[in-house]
Amino acid sequence: MRSVFYISDQTGITTEKLGTALLIKFPHVELRKDSFPFSNTPSKIRQILLKVRNRYMIDGYKPLIISSMVDPELRKLLKVDYATHLDFFESFIAPLELALDTKAVMSSGKIHSIGDQDKYNHRIEAIHYSLENDDGVSAKHYEEADLIVVGVSRVGKTPTSIFLAVNYGIKVANYPLAEDDLEHPSLPKILVPFHHKLFGLSIEVEKLHTIRSNRLPGSRYAKIETCKHEIAAAERIMHNSGVPFLNTSHKSIEEISVAMMQIVKLTRQF
Amino acid sequence: MRSVFYISDQTGITTEKLGTALLIKFPHVELRKDSFPFSNTPSKIRQILLKVRNRYMIDGYKPLIISSMVDPELRKLLKVDYATHLDFFESFIAPLELALDTKAVMSSGKIHSIGDQDKYNHRIEAIHYSLENDDGVSAKHYEEADLIVVGVSRVGKTPTSIFLAVNYGIKVANYPLAEDDLEHPSLPKILVPFHHKLFGLSIEVEKLHTIRSNRLPGSRYAKIETCKHEIAAAERIMHNSGVPFLNTSHKSIEEISVAMMQIVKLTRQF
Repeated sequence: MRSVFYISDQTGITTEKLGTALLIKFPHVELRKDSFPFSNTPSKIRQILLKVRNRYMIDGYKPLIISSMVDPELRKLLKVDYATHLDFFESFIAPLELALDTKAVMSSGKIHSIGDQDKYNHRIEAIHYSLENDDGVSAKHYEEADLIVVGVSRVGKTPTSIFLAVNYGIKVANYPLAEDDLEHPSLPKILVPFHHKLFGLSIEVEKLHTIRSNRLPGSRYAKIETCKHEIAAAERIMHNSGVPFLNTSHKSIEEISVAMMQIVKLTRQF
Repeated sequence: MRSVFYISDQTGITTEKLGTALLIKFPHVELRKDSFPFSNTPSKIRQILLKVRNRYMIDGYKPLIISSMVDPELRKLLKVDYATHLDFFESFIAPLELALDTKAVMSSGKIHSIGDQDKYNHRIEAIHYSLENDDGVSAKHYEEADLIVVGVSRVGKTPTSIFLAVNYGIKVANYPLAEDDLEHPSLPKILVPFHHKLFGLSIEVEKLHTIRSNRLPGSRYAKIETCKHEIAAAERIMHNSGVPFLNTSHKSIEEISVAMMQIVKLTRQF
């Protein structure tokens, strides 16, 4: 059992992601993780170091400190002989200074702060927009959408739309293809004027069956035949009308979102 | 003008965050960024390198390649003399192998893939839960909540709840304190049984006034007196009933979310 301390003088979100992406490559090491965001004073750091030292005594191994300390003075405090310390600013700022031929201004900008207020407001608006246009009830606000996600019920439209809004500030509406829609081989009329903003999601029959069965066990909605029929009809519509689509069966929200953005060439809006 | 190429054989989400967190410290360098997720074959890499080389000719400066290539063979291809290359696996895997006294298994796990299906399902459930319990209409599902966010209208409850659900798999309900609630100095009855799960958000009067004015200009709802009265009443309720709360005025969704999780000791659920 090894102990990992994530320490940041800001939110530490990026540090933890980085640490997770790295430590996942050591599947045979059992890890105990603790996070210390907003550790922005020497006294906070010293309190954490007491815990690090304590853990060293208990574990018999040096704990790992994975940090992103903007303040170099605070960063120095983490160089202790009872822990292994990796700091991502420390590792990358020097090579970047060399490459960009200029000194870093460590006091400037923070990745997860409000930053530019207009861009931040746009992001909050995108979240509200996506929540309010999640059901296909009305096309009233489709003009405003950056993207309209279409697909059958429980194909993954909502989580994907919300993820894109929250993390990329993209205004995503989503339109569930309902039974009525699926009877026709062409796009529902309501969507036609927004053809250029459409993106489809599809899924394997078995997978949809499992998801729907968890939700409404034994229902017609969850039946394998229903799933099969709906998926085929939805794919036919997308195919006939030239709407790009991808299969979500083995993809996480992140993978679906990044793939969609790549295909339709959308970028982060904040 | 310098060019930055984010290249990853997976989603590249962490790579871009890391790059953004670093490059924000060089405010005087104008940057042009391009992202190439899912670059997982030599031929894809070679296509990107053509662009990198081209940009080098145009810019007159070596572009920056910031990458996270799991596959060391693909990573090697990025070592070209017309670009500066930083790879975060390359930088950190060796020191981690030393610290953990074991070899990394580069083929194991991916941070943004589905991974553990049960945990992934839990996360999707959390997103649906938070969307469906966003209005305080019914306490029917409050048993199931990990957290219930309370506060006046437009204090930031919804974006925060959604962020926590999407990025941490936390089931967050949110309860807007309405006029009726604000007339009493104590918690709305509906919330009393869930006291231990409550977290409050507050905000500065001016800030709330601005946000509400953008939404409904000139309304009583947006008036400075209304905002002042509502905030005071809400804070009194939270204070009287011992509900922890924080002020969102100068905090981003990320900062609010991480601070809340720290205060109530919640951790990522997937």
